[in-house]
Amino acid sequence: MTVHVSFSGGLDSTALLTRAVRSRGAENVQAVSMWYGQRHRKELEAAERIADALGVPWGTLNLMGLLSGGALLGEGAVPEGHYAAPSMALTVVHGRNLLFASALISRARPGDEVWLGVHAGDHFIYPDCRPEFITNLAATARTYGVEVRAPWVDITKSAIVAAEPGAPYELTWSCYNGRELHCGRCGTCVERAEAFAEAGVQDPTAYETAPEVVQP
Amino acid sequence: MTVHVSFSGGLDSTALLTRAVRSRGAENVQAVSMWYGQRHRKELEAAERIADALGVPWGTLNLMGLLSGGALLGEGAVPEGHYAAPSMALTVVHGRNLLFASALISRARPGDEVWLGVHAGDHFIYPDCRPEFITNLAATARTYGVEVRAPWVDITKSAIVAAEPGAPYELTWSCYNGRELHCGRCGTCVERAEAFAEAGVQDPTAYETAPEVVQP
Repeated sequence: MTVHVSFSGGLDSTALLTRAVRSRGAENVQAVSMWYGQRHRKELEAAERIADALGVPWGTLNLMGLLSGGALLGEGAVPEGHYAAPSMALTVVHGRNLLFASALISRARPGDEVWLGVHAGDHFIYPDCRPEFITNLAATARTYGVEVRAPWVDITKSAIVAAEPGAPYELTWSCYNGRELHCGRCGTCVERAEAFAEAGVQDPTAYETAPEVVQP
Repeated sequence: MTVHVSFSGGLDSTALLTRAVRSRGAENVQAVSMWYGQRHRKELEAAERIADALGVPWGTLNLMGLLSGGALLGEGAVPEGHYAAPSMALTVVHGRNLLFASALISRARPGDEVWLGVHAGDHFIYPDCRPEFITNLAATARTYGVEVRAPWVDITKSAIVAAEPGAPYELTWSCYNGRELHCGRCGTCVERAEAFAEAGVQDPTAYETAPEVVQP
């Protein structure tokens, strides 16, 4: 049995990979990152380092040309401000989680599991992060004898950090911009800083500008 | 509204494309073929000619490297004999219909439809051609406001031919081998010949060897 973890190198999926290693054993886990024309390769570089730190094989799948739309693919500027704001709708990439999951299900074999890092904080903006999407996707994947799991689907990013406080967060990359340091201004930077603050876990991130964290 | 038709250039999907054009109008239909490392490009060449004949734009999506396993991808010999025989299990490509549908759903926009040519004759061998797979996939796709339809899911190949007797079947390619003529011996050749015989429609195919058709 192999657990195929959809692994972006960001905070949620690093907690997810850590959980998979702790519960299934590193020898049964594979970390898979997707290349689909993101603005930068920073998160893929982070993903490789984190998988290496956790002792898990890492690979990429090439989905170039299969997704379109949204600021994350270089169409329009990356919106700044709070992650939950309406401007974040610009970052929606239609079909993304379905395509990611399908590519992993195609790699999996009967008896394997596919783990996704979708979480409750994304429900508002991304329809493919909602529990009913995961339920329907899991039913579809059982056609192939593959189980889809999304351990974070009912909890927020701060609860994820609190659930896996020992994950190598210092190696993760969240920022939508691809500069040397996290910008501290884009939606995911603000959300990242808030998650550490709310979880009561030390934020190991070096930001260009300290994010404006709304205290819980 | 656009109908995105998963279009292999074979018999079932040519009937499907013909049905889409008749019911939705050619101006609202797009034919999309998948390249995933098949043994030959004969069916893609057929697909382009058929779409052109039906006045529908045609394109391909590159899924190379995302699917593995099965004789259709060059692993082992193509099995001969009747399509329903256990040997045909060698032609199963794990995850194929899910990945095809996901790629089309990612191209679609809210309000669009994705049509798949899966049919009842394939239920026995391919789990992702069964009605419950389509039901679960359709529920998943509604997350994105996209409707999945499989008009042939409850009928056999002969009923498909009978349902669209005017489709340009003379342009279609079914054979698993990629020679100049249909071989007449592989599973899909036998199934193809039987479908025309059972439907009472003239088989326009030139075969190397006349298929052994079991009379209904």
